[in-house]
Amino acid sequence: MKNRLLILVIAVYCTAFAQVSAQIDQDKVVEDFESSSVNQQGKEFPKVNSEGRVRVEIEAPEAKKVQLDIGGVKYDLTKNDQAVWVGESAAQDEGFHYYQLNIDGASIPDPGSKYYYGSGRWGSGIEIPASDKEFYALKDVPHGNVSENLYYSEITQDWRRNFVYTPPGYFENSEKRYPVLYLQHGSYEDETGWSSQGHANLILDNLIASGDAEKMIIVMDNGYAYKPEDLKNAGENRPISSFEEVLMNEVIPKIDGKFRTIPDREHRAIAGLSMGASQTMSIIMNNLDNFAYYGGFSGTANFPGDKDLDVSNFLNGAFSNAKEVDQKLIVLWLGLGTKEPDVFFKTVGKFKEMLDQQGISYTYYESPDTAHEWLTWRRSLHQYAQLLFK
Amino acid sequence: MKNRLLILVIAVYCTAFAQVSAQIDQDKVVEDFESSSVNQQGKEFPKVNSEGRVRVEIEAPEAKKVQLDIGGVKYDLTKNDQAVWVGESAAQDEGFHYYQLNIDGASIPDPGSKYYYGSGRWGSGIEIPASDKEFYALKDVPHGNVSENLYYSEITQDWRRNFVYTPPGYFENSEKRYPVLYLQHGSYEDETGWSSQGHANLILDNLIASGDAEKMIIVMDNGYAYKPEDLKNAGENRPISSFEEVLMNEVIPKIDGKFRTIPDREHRAIAGLSMGASQTMSIIMNNLDNFAYYGGFSGTANFPGDKDLDVSNFLNGAFSNAKEVDQKLIVLWLGLGTKEPDVFFKTVGKFKEMLDQQGISYTYYESPDTAHEWLTWRRSLHQYAQLLFK
Repeated sequence: MKNRLLILVIAVYCTAFAQVSAQIDQDKVVEDFESSSVNQQGKEFPKVNSEGRVRVEIEAPEAKKVQLDIGGVKYDLTKNDQAVWVGESAAQDEGFHYYQLNIDGASIPDPGSKYYYGSGRWGSGIEIPASDKEFYALKDVPHGNVSENLYYSEITQDWRRNFVYTPPGYFENSEKRYPVLYLQHGSYEDETGWSSQGHANLILDNLIASGDAEKMIIVMDNGYAYKPEDLKNAGENRPISSFEEVLMNEVIPKIDGKFRTIPDREHRAIAGLSMGASQTMSIIMNNLDNFAYYGGFSGTANFPGDKDLDVSNFLNGAFSNAKEVDQKLIVLWLGLGTKEPDVFFKTVGKFKEMLDQQGISYTYYESPDTAHEWLTWRRSLHQYAQLLFK
Repeated sequence: MKNRLLILVIAVYCTAFAQVSAQIDQDKVVEDFESSSVNQQGKEFPKVNSEGRVRVEIEAPEAKKVQLDIGGVKYDLTKNDQAVWVGESAAQDEGFHYYQLNIDGASIPDPGSKYYYGSGRWGSGIEIPASDKEFYALKDVPHGNVSENLYYSEITQDWRRNFVYTPPGYFENSEKRYPVLYLQHGSYEDETGWSSQGHANLILDNLIASGDAEKMIIVMDNGYAYKPEDLKNAGENRPISSFEEVLMNEVIPKIDGKFRTIPDREHRAIAGLSMGASQTMSIIMNNLDNFAYYGGFSGTANFPGDKDLDVSNFLNGAFSNAKEVDQKLIVLWLGLGTKEPDVFFKTVGKFKEMLDQQGISYTYYESPDTAHEWLTWRRSLHQYAQLLFK
């Protein structure tokens, strides 16, 4: 798959943090740290305490300066008498965060954590146990499978892949057909995100077990898709995306051909987070005959902006015929974390105003005390999935 | 899953390298480096040249000493005027190698490479293009799927998982049943190895496309399996393994219940690499009514040793009844890389002597110019898979 894609993409949704350094007052740290749930097997560090602080440890006998870089802040570590650098962060929001270490100016993954694709790199992630973590926990319920599904795209002239969640019972029962949710990641993330740090499979396994969601297939593809000529012509600019074309003309036909789907609009949903929310909103409004459910997690297609939407113009006037939209979109779902940057509230707020003016019904959800991060999106999927295909 | 497992395990197969430092004579380096095929998307480094040298680069402005650690040798990097450390290794064998960087004494993954589980950690890997790399390349042929399959083990009282390769056509055709190969990793590796750095799925896709292998399901489980009481009682020693019990009483029944297998001995094969070769040899000899094909890649159950085998004693005399063994084992396959450490040649050699004395037929393969590494095992699978279920 193309290595050049990410460096060519301008991160529309990238939140710029001012990098600041900080030091922690040790007297205030609660000493109840436990190894993180996402450590590599056998690794004691990183650890997390009840306040949500992250403590890391790394042996670096000759280093001058070692830092923990998390949430846009760099925390200085201190070297103990065994040449091991140790230190912790301020309290972090509950949920999942990307982070890294910095050794004498080199930004590197923490050798103790598992690795995740986000922020445009494979690197460390950590889990601050959430008050509601049970909804995405690995439990004693029937489990679906997540399959790596390779395909060649004639449009992008490249091998691509998606991950396909099939619900419990899919393999045992060879007749039953299922509705499909197409679920997209955000910018600087990829097709691995939703079934790794997103826990989409466990969220659905648990909802299906409790009877709160219908059995469904979930397809998680890569939202970066470019034709060779568009990549070539873009130069330093962002190339024209062909993701909609790939999804509509290649992914969906291939999925419907391979898996036991119910291939009609009433049994096809689409959702995405951040960049994926914007992409999938455009896609569904261009293809209302193909989908009946939309979920926008921390994003809408008018991002970024605090301007009133011109309904005759926005997405080529897709919301002008309010009656038809309202009737065709069985679910129009929007979600945000209460700690997300203002721009997301403004953007989604303006979109909601337009919907209100047009008299188009929707569901709006706020995830308490979470930012533009994965716990917001896990909760969004948990809410949204319960409304689908009923 | 249990974090403590690996630190409790003594690495029977761990090859101890004397760590040496080396410096490269720049005049002798061929300047035709290209970005590695296993780099993270958008990353230029690491690179590989036609000699098989690995060149790495990392920004570490304040570092005193940065090294590339590959093949048991640490190569000093040099700092250029942009505070970027650059350097390369001596020529490496073709194929896949684990490696790491060292910054001021800290051993860390290279932020440019993708990460693999091996040597007991998630870390960097690199691919030196092999002369025969086409057999495991991603090609324009029908592709199978690899599914993550979660299950609860009553034996280990823990959640476990395997990865299941289903061949091209499995999903589209809801009736056809397939034979199964159980394929195991080596020590300090896990259930991810064979479908990641091992490319088991691509090897089979290519063999099936060319008509050289039968369509089969491949199950790749985790060879570390311990009962809670055995972990507790082991203390600092290696706990008693319950992998055979988990495989026979849990994995196989669950796979036969979920997937469309042909659940009899003539349609069930087992193979493993290194530690997995030893484990699976014990398992098949204890369960000849359940498997008809054995593959030992770089290992046999008499490892490590140069002693003659006492056939009345070895594996509880499993090879004593030579006629029955010879008849029941449709394939008994052994493979080694020509550059493997002596102990593997001695061990496998003594095992072969016993087979010869007993008049038990087998196939023996040597992978040219490869060591105790993944190209040996990819080639072994490529050879072995062609003999199965025919």
